[in-house]
Amino acid sequence: MSGGARFITLEGIDGSGKSTQARLLAEALRGQGHVVHLTREPGGSPGAEEIRKLLLEGDPDRWSAETEILLFTAARRDHLERVIEPALARGEIVICDRFADSTRMYQGLRSAEGREMVDSLHDLMIKREPDLTLLIDLDPQAGLDRALSRKGSEERFESFGTDLQARMRAGFLELAGDFPDRITVIDGARAPEQVAQDILGVVTSRLR
Amino acid sequence: MSGGARFITLEGIDGSGKSTQARLLAEALRGQGHVVHLTREPGGSPGAEEIRKLLLEGDPDRWSAETEILLFTAARRDHLERVIEPALARGEIVICDRFADSTRMYQGLRSAEGREMVDSLHDLMIKREPDLTLLIDLDPQAGLDRALSRKGSEERFESFGTDLQARMRAGFLELAGDFPDRITVIDGARAPEQVAQDILGVVTSRLR
Repeated sequence: MSGGARFITLEGIDGSGKSTQARLLAEALRGQGHVVHLTREPGGSPGAEEIRKLLLEGDPDRWSAETEILLFTAARRDHLERVIEPALARGEIVICDRFADSTRMYQGLRSAEGREMVDSLHDLMIKREPDLTLLIDLDPQAGLDRALSRKGSEERFESFGTDLQARMRAGFLELAGDFPDRITVIDGARAPEQVAQDILGVVTSRLR
Repeated sequence: MSGGARFITLEGIDGSGKSTQARLLAEALRGQGHVVHLTREPGGSPGAEEIRKLLLEGDPDRWSAETEILLFTAARRDHLERVIEPALARGEIVICDRFADSTRMYQGLRSAEGREMVDSLHDLMIKREPDLTLLIDLDPQAGLDRALSRKGSEERFESFGTDLQARMRAGFLELAGDFPDRITVIDGARAPEQVAQDILGVVTSRLR
């Protein structure tokens, strides 16, 4: 496997099933004989995981929007150069749960300046886009029910109400409009197996 | 005190006496009745001190140049908005041991691209320059002797030989040429009290 869409990211609101689908996709592709590196952001490399702790632990107001964007970008740069690029260079498929679109969406909800800052920093320090992004679209209430049924120490992304989730959904769909060639919207309201089958179909057609 | 050069930074190679002179300057200005906030980089605010740990502890090759620049910029942004700007807004004098010039000089020695990256990130995320920068210039061998006579857990900046120190000295002097209005070169080869007197004279003349 040397060509095709080998750097694949999953995006979506909390509870949309990103992590489950990332895992199912990795298993399916491995079953086809591919070597797959499954990873996630923020984090995914030893250094980026340390930056993740700074971002997700402690007071949510600990960092300003600007400092947060810099830390996310630092973590992404480390993850990209230490894990993602080397795996792609070895001919592996990389599946990443969240990537730059999450940062674009979150900061874009905060302000137009926030989104511009994310884009400027991306252009300067990251540059790389995924070959294919699967946006798992889901009604916020369904997503929230799923998110609340889980337990985890990282409460920050889970502690929002449905109103904010609705804005995040709209933000992701707007991004899908901005990057129509890269981002494919997947209906996440169906059973996980059906969603997985849909995703595998899209990925397989893009892996040639 | 509302006008004049109230945001003052000190720069120089290891062992040049920056920290000592920052402290002596703070004491002298307090003796004149000024309210002085003495701080340092990387660090200077609770968040930036945590980023400092990521930067200075562990394997020196832990971060690429690019990730390192992002982390320094994140720490600087936090320090600036949480500590430096509020202190200046209260009418205080801020004395900072190292600031953006250290990052410019270090990354500039690595590569021209590194320096450009520092400048682009500074323009985008920091913007602020000190009102006055005191570059304490010293012969590297003298600086190294002083640095080695100290003990500390943060060995990274101290573990270079005189050849690199000579390049750093040249890098700082080049910066002084780039920012002639802001950076004043101080002869650091004299007794600390003489250097302090010299610095106090420059600062006092710029505080009006």
